[in-house]
Amino acid sequence: MTAPKTALVISAHAADFVWRCGGAIALHAQMGYEVTVLCLTFGERGESAKLWKQEGMDLQTVKDVRRKEAENAAKALGAEIVCLDKGDYPLELDRQDKDQIVDVIRRVQPSFMMSHSQYDPYNTDHSYTTQIALECRMIAQAWGHKPGEKVLGAPQLYLFEPHQTEQMGWKPDTFLDITPVWDRKRAAIESMEGQHHLWDYYTRVAENRANHFRRNSGGQAGGRECKYAEGFQSIFPRTVDEL
Amino acid sequence: MTAPKTALVISAHAADFVWRCGGAIALHAQMGYEVTVLCLTFGERGESAKLWKQEGMDLQTVKDVRRKEAENAAKALGAEIVCLDKGDYPLELDRQDKDQIVDVIRRVQPSFMMSHSQYDPYNTDHSYTTQIALECRMIAQAWGHKPGEKVLGAPQLYLFEPHQTEQMGWKPDTFLDITPVWDRKRAAIESMEGQHHLWDYYTRVAENRANHFRRNSGGQAGGRECKYAEGFQSIFPRTVDEL
Amino acid sequence: MTAPKTALVISAHAADFVWRCGGAIALHAQMGYEVTVLCLTFGERGESAKLWKQEGMDLQTVKDVRRKEAENAAKALGAEIVCLDKGDYPLELDRQDKDQIVDVIRRVQPSFMMSHSQYDPYNTDHSYTTQIALECRMIAQAWGHKPGEKVLGAPQLYLFEPHQTEQMGWKPDTFLDITPVWDRKRAAIESMEGQHHLWDYYTRVAENRANHFRRNSGGQAGGRECKYAEGFQSIFPRTVDEL
Amino acid sequence: MTAPKTALVISAHAADFVWRCGGAIALHAQMGYEVTVLCLTFGERGESAKLWKQEGMDLQTVKDVRRKEAENAAKALGAEIVCLDKGDYPLELDRQDKDQIVDVIRRVQPSFMMSHSQYDPYNTDHSYTTQIALECRMIAQAWGHKPGEKVLGAPQLYLFEPHQTEQMGWKPDTFLDITPVWDRKRAAIESMEGQHHLWDYYTRVAENRANHFRRNSGGQAGGRECKYAEGFQSIFPRTVDEL
Amino acid sequence: MTAPKTALVISAHAADFVWRCGGAIALHAQMGYEVTVLCLTFGERGESAKLWKQEGMDLQTVKDVRRKEAENAAKALGAEIVCLDKGDYPLELDRQDKDQIVDVIRRVQPSFMMSHSQYDPYNTDHSYTTQIALECRMIAQAWGHKPGEKVLGAPQLYLFEPHQTEQMGWKPDTFLDITPVWDRKRAAIESMEGQHHLWDYYTRVAENRANHFRRNSGGQAGGRECKYAEGFQSIFPRTVDEL
Amino acid sequence: MTAPKTALVISAHAADFVWRCGGAIALHAQMGYEVTVLCLTFGERGESAKLWKQEGMDLQTVKDVRRKEAENAAKALGAEIVCLDKGDYPLELDRQDKDQIVDVIRRVQPSFMMSHSQYDPYNTDHSYTTQIALECRMIAQAWGHKPGEKVLGAPQLYLFEPHQTEQMGWKPDTFLDITPVWDRKRAAIESMEGQHHLWDYYTRVAENRANHFRRNSGGQAGGRECKYAEGFQSIFPRTVDEL
Repeated sequence: MTAPKTALVISAHAADFVWRCGGAIALHAQMGYEVTVLCLTFGERGESAKLWKQEGMDLQTVKDVRRKEAENAAKALGAEIVCLDKGDYPLELDRQDKDQIVDVIRRVQPSFMMSHSQYDPYNTDHSYTTQIALECRMIAQAWGHKPGEKVLGAPQLYLFEPHQTEQMGWKPDTFLDITPVWDRKRAAIESMEGQHHLWDYYTRVAENRANHFRRNSGGQAGGRECKYAEGFQSIFPRTVDEL
Repeated sequence: MTAPKTALVISAHAADFVWRCGGAIALHAQMGYEVTVLCLTFGERGESAKLWKQEGMDLQTVKDVRRKEAENAAKALGAEIVCLDKGDYPLELDRQDKDQIVDVIRRVQPSFMMSHSQYDPYNTDHSYTTQIALECRMIAQAWGHKPGEKVLGAPQLYLFEPHQTEQMGWKPDTFLDITPVWDRKRAAIESMEGQHHLWDYYTRVAENRANHFRRNSGGQAGGRECKYAEGFQSIFPRTVDEL
Repeated sequence: MTAPKTALVISAHAADFVWRCGGAIALHAQMGYEVTVLCLTFGERGESAKLWKQEGMDLQTVKDVRRKEAENAAKALGAEIVCLDKGDYPLELDRQDKDQIVDVIRRVQPSFMMSHSQYDPYNTDHSYTTQIALECRMIAQAWGHKPGEKVLGAPQLYLFEPHQTEQMGWKPDTFLDITPVWDRKRAAIESMEGQHHLWDYYTRVAENRANHFRRNSGGQAGGRECKYAEGFQSIFPRTVDEL
Repeated sequence: MTAPKTALVISAHAADFVWRCGGAIALHAQMGYEVTVLCLTFGERGESAKLWKQEGMDLQTVKDVRRKEAENAAKALGAEIVCLDKGDYPLELDRQDKDQIVDVIRRVQPSFMMSHSQYDPYNTDHSYTTQIALECRMIAQAWGHKPGEKVLGAPQLYLFEPHQTEQMGWKPDTFLDITPVWDRKRAAIESMEGQHHLWDYYTRVAENRANHFRRNSGGQAGGRECKYAEGFQSIFPRTVDEL
Repeated sequence: MTAPKTALVISAHAADFVWRCGGAIALHAQMGYEVTVLCLTFGERGESAKLWKQEGMDLQTVKDVRRKEAENAAKALGAEIVCLDKGDYPLELDRQDKDQIVDVIRRVQPSFMMSHSQYDPYNTDHSYTTQIALECRMIAQAWGHKPGEKVLGAPQLYLFEPHQTEQMGWKPDTFLDITPVWDRKRAAIESMEGQHHLWDYYTRVAENRANHFRRNSGGQAGGRECKYAEGFQSIFPRTVDEL
Repeated sequence: MTAPKTALVISAHAADFVWRCGGAIALHAQMGYEVTVLCLTFGERGESAKLWKQEGMDLQTVKDVRRKEAENAAKALGAEIVCLDKGDYPLELDRQDKDQIVDVIRRVQPSFMMSHSQYDPYNTDHSYTTQIALECRMIAQAWGHKPGEKVLGAPQLYLFEPHQTEQMGWKPDTFLDITPVWDRKRAAIESMEGQHHLWDYYTRVAENRANHFRRNSGGQAGGRECKYAEGFQSIFPRTVDEL
């Protein structure tokens, strides 16, 4: 019996994984992958405006609410969630934090990883997270880091869809059909009660990405029917036996 | 019984397909693909220096020799070859030429296409060929072009490896293991008698690309053994059901 | 009394101006601009699949239907439309065609121009049109071209939104609020009877661009309410008296 | 009565704001904007060669001289100046420093911000400052950062002109006519007594940018007269009601 | 006795070579190079506004005046000039025109070539000329083109400085000290009587490029004194024996 | 008697300088340059897999072995080596470390410097090292850093060849013929006993770069014979008196 395949999503703030790759998570979970979501922060300072507008709000309450939402979303998607609570806006990680992330990477031994776009002038936490993901991937591959542990192979790092893609220099090279798990993604989206204004926005994104899926799979001459899709940019080249 | 899969390589000059994607051709031919190589020219003016250095050489003789070499190479690789003899250095195509290329595309109905890098300051025939490949792919998709014919779907266009990759802005995103068919590629290479100086050059390229294949498939922690490989850059995004 | 301001949209195929800048056209028309849409082709061969699937269809009928749709759309938007019928898939223009376009540019004397993205591997007619737009803008500025005519100033060239923006390297630097004229754009969209599958697609695009408008105008701390928007990329720098 | 508009310039070293956006500062000050210049350092180590060549020079004296020059320049331009004295060559900022910058941003509530180019291989303080400007802009927008304070909207970040623009990948998209305030900019320039070799250099830059202003505003067919100009690159898209 | 070294400048319009590489021409001429300037057009339609504003002007007169100016400039610089009179705005070349350019290249056998930037949205003649220069360089290298003639080696193609460098994506990698021949360049500039408005503009460019020369040759710690310079971008890599 | 010329190589890990610029080191050493190699780490954790696979291995032993190998390689190349032992995977440097690097730069006063590519998603130590090299070059130029010391001029920074060049966005603009010292480079390569799998890989790289050298120095019409070469990318423009 072989071990199940695994995947690891590194998300700067608690909600990012939902909008940007909730479908990929649910789809792979359904296929038997063990998917782990690593949230570096809860987005408690920067992405919880609705909560902060309530009178008498305090940081711990915001974190608690956001954690709960993220856990509900992960559950809806069928993923394990790990929250590191490193503090957002700005996110700043030291050597010990990196080691902690490396521990998760080595434990999961992901078949593929996911994180943010490499550039984001609106949100420096996002691009910083991707830089850290690459750095920790490298450490996890080092035979001399905690010698004796199983080292990491060479998993792909997919960059999931940022908000305002063109401003981030993000270009998807892979479209994934998430139609079979759309209900789960929508359920996860609806867990994000504080960001109601994004529910329909990301539903429209999924519908339009499905149009791209259809076109690139053959268009009006054989394109695959697809109602919802997600797009990803790959950092590393693929290795294949057939084109 | 389903029809065999097909592939189409559009090569500016007679020898290009050998150095740059001979392995991909042989491998897919071996898998049962029907692979067609479309040579727009014989490289008779610009890539036949050795022949021209012979006293009394004339254009028809150069073309004949080069055609023979290309046919031998195609045979070694297991591919059909179509030579259009459009004239090289510079290659210039009119509307009728494009229609002729579209005819080939529609006849082949390729699962994937291959051509040159999109930029090449050393050799404008190369980048022009890729521009034409994209234009003819578009025409072949048009329902109003020769109505009643089967229109083209949305095949990937892979850009094969140019000489001096970095000067061409070419970045491979896909490495293909061609170890099983290396002997056939080497045989095709040796058909190119006028370009002996490139035989070992492209053997070394294949060996070094194999190193890249191993690294990207896992490196020292699970990388796939591979002795010879080829690299390709994709123009269009992929559509998948699993990452 | 000063002359009304003017704008010129150069569209490769009959429907492009509707999806991509119908809002900008209607908005400026409503402000008193005289907006001219120059359609180089009807998209008769490449963008009329639905018509071609009808038995016994012929080229002239397709053109007639598409022209009618385009005229209806232009009318809904409040623009003048000029159709040159140059033939699509591929579009190919000679010196006389360019002169004809220059004549239109000089007649209109546009305050700003609009055309396609500069790169489009799916549709080479699009990028070719933009290249021609730049070339004809240059000719229209030449004092020695038809001396005595009023030469062109230096209007901005806005690139309107292509399909699959990230694949085209298109990056919007300007978002226009088209909420006040959304009904007119939707009416123009519904004139495109043969491309029903795009009606909702481009409605979703407009809704999501409105989200970008709100964010870039201040977000949750002062962002302007906006329900529908369009995005544009500028080719030339702006000249201003206040930042 | 509405509050005056405001602008914030974040300058790595004391003199940068003078050469690069002195005209923009003076022009907006004259229009009634309250312009604040935030100098992170005095450029005391890296941009004060002339002082250091004097025998017996010490760090405090250099700082005092440079501060005085910067204050004189700010006065000539009509701007408030805030000097943080964080140390240059290299500039290194910690969390507390960032909070201090955020405090200034929130206090000013700028209509627009300005800083350096995003890349500068000659001077890493410059690109680091822009990175910090983006990070602090993000923090200033966070409702959970010092809850209760007025959060920041979404001001444009203009990148002012670096030295050797092409090496920095800097591309201006906005030219500002500074003719009406040129005398004030030249006066500010002349406050920089230690960098006499740059006085005429940046006067020539302003004159040549005016040529660009004229060309882009219409050239020989209606271009606006302009004797001195400055160029800026925008990070974020604009939101407009008219193109 | 060895043959003198040679250089070839391919200029779209008659005046381009003066502003953009007049110093390089004069300097190499003074060193003994035989420098040939190939003007594809006189810039008669597009860059002769001042002449066209004169009443009763006609095309032949404009050409005559422009030719005279160009000849005077070439003489001042010490270069041979060849004018092809192919027609500007737009420049369009056919196969015969290319062959004619190849003839010049082969006759000159240049040690290095010069032409325009690769992108120019303001002036498509410029970028088209560079594309043609690369194409003709390739043809000139072909052993099968006019067999028996001496084929071309692999000369560098330097792109000289365009107007509004940043808009053209032009990045200089080589600065040439033209101080010893500045008088000759200024004399050539003053031959361009119809473009008086550019005399001081390009003098300022040369002075500011000298500042870049000084900085890159050592700055305040050993930089070479230099009063006037020109910048160039190289297309091809250099081959050297010492770094 | 003039002082000998000098060069400084900044290498993230002990072996990098061997594969990537061993030829340049040996060649310049042979010409009389004093070449200093600054190894920031031994690559002890991340690039010593073979050692770590031995039972009972410990960090100090790995460092000792790797130091010995690096010293042997430097000796074979004729260079001085300085090992800072800062710790790899990840490399992290503080202010004191930077000052130490600046001390080396100022002591060496290099005619040119060398380091890694600016981007490397596989190995963030590499790109971080180049960022530090640029930062320390800037500090070394500051008159106010340790006043009284001889400040640095403006040496070129060459980026040596990374593994998988295209993935790093590295583009060589300079090819150096290292044929005369190939034996020394191969000897240095063979000092790297733990990375036997790379010996032939980098021999093939040198052979293929020689092909590029030949092509760019004239190809089949006068190209220089060359058996082994190395490629480099320049960060800064050159200043020359002849093109």
